[in-house]
Amino acid sequence: MIGTRLTREFGLRHPVVSAPMALAAGGGLAAAVTAAGGLGLIGGGYGDADWVETAFRDAGNARVGCGFITWKLAERPEVLTRALAHDPAALFLSFGDPAPFADEIAAAGVPLICQVQTLEHARHALASGARVIVAQGGEAGGHGATRATMTLVPEVADLLAREAPEVLLLAAGGIADGRGLAAALMLGADGVLVGTRLWASREALVPEAIRAAGLAADGDATLRSSLPDIARRLDWPAPFTIRTVENAFTRDWAADPEGLRARADLHAAYAVAARDGDATLAPPIAGEAVGLIHDVAPAGEIVARMAAEAEALLGGGWRR
Amino acid sequence: MIGTRLTREFGLRHPVVSAPMALAAGGGLAAAVTAAGGLGLIGGGYGDADWVETAFRDAGNARVGCGFITWKLAERPEVLTRALAHDPAALFLSFGDPAPFADEIAAAGVPLICQVQTLEHARHALASGARVIVAQGGEAGGHGATRATMTLVPEVADLLAREAPEVLLLAAGGIADGRGLAAALMLGADGVLVGTRLWASREALVPEAIRAAGLAADGDATLRSSLPDIARRLDWPAPFTIRTVENAFTRDWAADPEGLRARADLHAAYAVAARDGDATLAPPIAGEAVGLIHDVAPAGEIVARMAAEAEALLGGGWRR
Ligand SMILES: Cc1cc2nc3c(=O)[nH]c(=O)nc-3n(C[C@H](O)[C@H](O)[C@H](O)COP(=O)(O)O)c2cc1C
Ligand SMILES: Cc1cc2nc3c(=O)[nH]c(=O)nc-3n(C[C@H](O)[C@H](O)[C@H](O)COP(=O)(O)O)c2cc1C
Repeated sequence: MIGTRLTREFGLRHPVVSAPMALAAGGGLAAAVTAAGGLGLIGGGYGDADWVETAFRDAGNARVGCGFITWKLAERPEVLTRALAHDPAALFLSFGDPAPFADEIAAAGVPLICQVQTLEHARHALASGARVIVAQGGEAGGHGATRATMTLVPEVADLLAREAPEVLLLAAGGIADGRGLAAALMLGADGVLVGTRLWASREALVPEAIRAAGLAADGDATLRSSLPDIARRLDWPAPFTIRTVENAFTRDWAADPEGLRARADLHAAYAVAARDGDATLAPPIAGEAVGLIHDVAPAGEIVARMAAEAEALLGGGWRR
Repeated sequence: MIGTRLTREFGLRHPVVSAPMALAAGGGLAAAVTAAGGLGLIGGGYGDADWVETAFRDAGNARVGCGFITWKLAERPEVLTRALAHDPAALFLSFGDPAPFADEIAAAGVPLICQVQTLEHARHALASGARVIVAQGGEAGGHGATRATMTLVPEVADLLAREAPEVLLLAAGGIADGRGLAAALMLGADGVLVGTRLWASREALVPEAIRAAGLAADGDATLRSSLPDIARRLDWPAPFTIRTVENAFTRDWAADPEGLRARADLHAAYAVAARDGDATLAPPIAGEAVGLIHDVAPAGEIVARMAAEAEALLGGGWRR
């Protein structure tokens, strides 16, 4: 068992938190991660209140947290209030200014986890009262920016050591097995946030054909772009782009994002493809870590394997 | 002491190799790294034969290797022959096809180290007979591509385990202290290649004002671009760009690289700035790891610190 400040403060068996992946991380996935000894988070994403209610219901009695996309939550602040009514284990905010929500979260007695993409974001998250900071590298699946996990984690660790030693640090981006978990601990993290690896779990709400396209990809076959957001008409602010696996859609439009903006017909088609699993149009939302994933396993098994492999490495198993 | 396959096969005390940084890694730096128990590499870069001769002379009796930029070496293959005449500890190739040079290097009995930026490059390096593969993430200083160290290293490790278990693996990109070294070992590397941290060493051939601008930067303040290559009229092939610290020059031209191409006057001015240390025009060539660097130390001390810090972490010092 790998004990860290994270496992102690949140009462976990493993220093592993599941990413609040919009639409993909429902209550089933979050509950499975918590049951396995990690901390499961519901992917509240863009703040669809009904979806979030369903997810909490599906999580049953499991102690789970919930994440939101901050710039979107600002348009629907009431969804935060409803989520807090479920007494979540943590409230996770990423991609925008967490400050306007911090007081309400603190008043509810819920720990605030802020995911950050730059050192500057980290400073702002501290000023907003984050109890946990997630340093997310650009190799991550889904939205993010360009700094890499390998340097952002230790640089934020140094910031915390100087200015807020009581704040916990998680590493996110590219962590899909025990090697990544052990490496993150060496870099100064108290644990990891895992997205792509759990996106490829049994419990994730991902259409089968899209998951299969992700599993078939190697790590060279992903890219950061705004193409899916243009097709979905989501006004993501700079500096955020979304990492997906390449497919016919991303190849066709890579050189002409403005042309895509004009294709109103693709808006509805993309939504249908994402729902029904047409991976030639809607690409797998996954990170460079797809190249490290070779099976779809139950989430609990993924967490257990990751922890066991990291424990073996930390015990000297890295020697060859 | 951290023993790995790299330290055993190359007779080192520490699993640390210095990057063959064009113009910055002369014989003094390479020799200092070797003297400290690592493996020092001369930065043969674009293949200026006189510069390389001087560097080998400056290295004295120290056992050092030499690196070249492969696509440029193809225009000046005789420089390889001259470098091999010095019986280097290793010949390092990056950025282009190593295959045309592999036979000559093998015939000289010199180990070939290939730096790769993608899984596809790694496969080709194996087919070309590399004895060591360096998996370089895009957070690295200098030229590189976009994959991140955190995922590329374990993915290449898996490839080697399947197809060429005798080939050694180094991690490059973002490694500036013992945390990075320990993390790289967890990811499956046999050692690390260190650039930016040694760029900020006493022995590196870097104008004082440019080094100072690098030290003042945090890790958020670097970018990958082609701007310095356009100003220098270097025809770098895709997918390679160069990571530098941001400065007035990169900010002025970021949105208009074609405009820069037309500014013939900046070609000479840039060369003068790089030589004389005008960091507002010629930016520090350094990676995201600048944010982890707070002093200019002798190279030997940097290697020793890195190894000692990693050893402490591997012995359990990561626990907080
Ligand atoms: C399918 C998918 C959806 C995601 N959606 C969100 C989201 O809604 N909110 C969020 O904060 N992060 C989201 N992320 C990013 C994760 O929080 C996390 O940073 C990332 O998955 C970590 O990198 P990894 O994918 O390499 O594990 C998503 C990631 C994936 C793969
Ligand atoms: C100033 C500088 C010059 C470089 N020049 C070269 C070069 O000529 N050839 C090469 O193969 N790599 C070169 N690199 C890249 C290094 O080989 C190495 O991949 C990189 O420095 C590792 O990442 P780091 O800078 O974060 O340590 C250079 C790096 C720097 C910082």
